[in-house]
Amino acid sequence: MSRQVAFMEEVKGWVYEAGDFVKEELRHVITVEEKSNRHDLVTNVDKATEQFLVNKIKKHYPNDTIIGEEGTGKSVTSKDGRLWIIDPIDGTLNFVKQQENFCIMIGIFEGGKASYGFIYNVMKDEFAYGGRHTGIFINEKEIKNIDNIGIRDGLIGCNAQMYTENLYHATDICKQAVGVRVLGCAGIDFLNVITGRQNGYLSKLAPWDFAAGVALAEPLGLICKQIPDLDYDILGDRQFFVVATEKTYHEIVSDFK
Amino acid sequence: MSRQVAFMEEVKGWVYEAGDFVKEELRHVITVEEKSNRHDLVTNVDKATEQFLVNKIKKHYPNDTIIGEEGTGKSVTSKDGRLWIIDPIDGTLNFVKQQENFCIMIGIFEGGKASYGFIYNVMKDEFAYGGRHTGIFINEKEIKNIDNIGIRDGLIGCNAQMYTENLYHATDICKQAVGVRVLGCAGIDFLNVITGRQNGYLSKLAPWDFAAGVALAEPLGLICKQIPDLDYDILGDRQFFVVATEKTYHEIVSDFK
Repeated sequence: MSRQVAFMEEVKGWVYEAGDFVKEELRHVITVEEKSNRHDLVTNVDKATEQFLVNKIKKHYPNDTIIGEEGTGKSVTSKDGRLWIIDPIDGTLNFVKQQENFCIMIGIFEGGKASYGFIYNVMKDEFAYGGRHTGIFINEKEIKNIDNIGIRDGLIGCNAQMYTENLYHATDICKQAVGVRVLGCAGIDFLNVITGRQNGYLSKLAPWDFAAGVALAEPLGLICKQIPDLDYDILGDRQFFVVATEKTYHEIVSDFK
Repeated sequence: MSRQVAFMEEVKGWVYEAGDFVKEELRHVITVEEKSNRHDLVTNVDKATEQFLVNKIKKHYPNDTIIGEEGTGKSVTSKDGRLWIIDPIDGTLNFVKQQENFCIMIGIFEGGKASYGFIYNVMKDEFAYGGRHTGIFINEKEIKNIDNIGIRDGLIGCNAQMYTENLYHATDICKQAVGVRVLGCAGIDFLNVITGRQNGYLSKLAPWDFAAGVALAEPLGLICKQIPDLDYDILGDRQFFVVATEKTYHEIVSDFK
C-alpha cells in the first residue's frame, strides 16, 4: 500500500468514526443555535464533530494547519504545507429538520493544491473519498470516468437563492437542464456530480463547502470554478461556485456571460 | 387481522414485488421516450411496472376501476366503487438520470374518498402505507402524530416552475420557511411531509401524483388542497396542489391570497 493510500485509509477511518458519533448523537436531544440568521444553524453535534476531527489531526499531524466551519483556524492566511478544511456537518438544516441528507466533509490541500477529499452522506452510508494521488472511490468501488454530458442531458443542482433570483443566470442555466434540484447540502450535490447523477451544481459556497468536493471532482475531469470563470479561492469568503462536466461548464460559460 | 389490514398487507406485497422488479430492470438497459416534452419522460420500466400492478388488480379485484399514469383507464369519469390510481414510477427523471430518488405509488379511493395509500421509495427502501381504516405505517412502524409546525419552523418542498415563477406566491411562501427543497419526486415530498421532515409541499400534480399521498396524509391531520383553498379533484387534470401541516396551511391561506 502506498504512503498516499495508507493516509487516505487512515482519514477515511476517522470520518467513519465521526459518522458513528453523529448517529449516536441523533438518539439524544440536539441543541440548535442560530448563527448569522434563522436559515444558518449550528448544533452541539456540529461543534463536537469538528472537535473530534481536529483532535485526531492534531494528535497525528501536529504541524498541519486546520480550518473548520465551526471556528477552527479562523485566521489562517497561508496555503503553505498541508491544510485540512473541515465541514463537520454540511447541510445542518437537513440534519436538524430531517435527521438525514447531511454530510461530513474533509478536504486536504498541499501547497495550495487539492489533494484528498472525503464526503460521507452518513444516513445513506454513501462515502466518496480519495484524490489525485490515489484515485476516487465510492464505498470501496473506484470511479473510473464520468460521461462528459452537456447541460441539456442531465439534472443540475442549484442554490435556492441563485435559482429564484437568477443570479449569474442560474435560473436560465437550470432551465436548459432536464431538471433542477435544490437539496440544501453541497456534499450531496458533489456526490451526485462525481457519480454522474447530476451534470453540475451552482451555489454560493464557503471553502469548507467545496474543499472536499474539488479534491474529488478535479481528478475525474470535472471543472471547479468560481463564477464567472475564475479560480476558486480556498482561503476566501463565500464565493459563487460551479462544478460541472467539462461540456456543461463550457456551455455555461459560452451561453451565459 | 381485520379485513382492511389484510387488504393493505396484500397490496403492500404487490408493491414490494414491483420494487424488486424495478431494481432488477435497473441492471439492464432502460429505453427512454419523451412524452409531452423533454422534461417529461417515460421508460419501458414505467410501462411494465404499471402493467404488472394492473394485472394483479384485475386478477384479484376484477370489478374495480383502475387509472394509471402510463395510459390505463384514460376515460374513467365516475368515482363510484373502488378506484385504484397508479403511478408506477414517480420521479422518472430521477429514475433515468440517478437510478434512485423515485417511488412506486398507489392510491385507492372508495366512493370518492381516499382510503389507502402506498408510497415506496424503492432504492432507499422506505415504504409508507395504510389509510383511514388501518393507521399509517412506515416500514412496519406506525406514525402516531406529526408536530403541527408553522411555516417558519420547517422545510418546504416546491415544484421548480412554481418556485422560480412565484406562481400562487410559491417563492414568497418558500422564503418564509427555513429552507426550500426541489426534489423532482412528489412521492418523496409526501414521505417527507408525513414524517415531519418537511412542513409542506407545493406543486402542480396529476391525480396519480397525489392519490397515494392524500390517503396517507389526511388521516394524520395534514391538509391536502387544490390551490387556492379548493378541494382537489381525483379525476381532474394536473392541478396546483398543497399538502401541509394544519398550521402551515392556514398561514399560507391567510398570508398569501
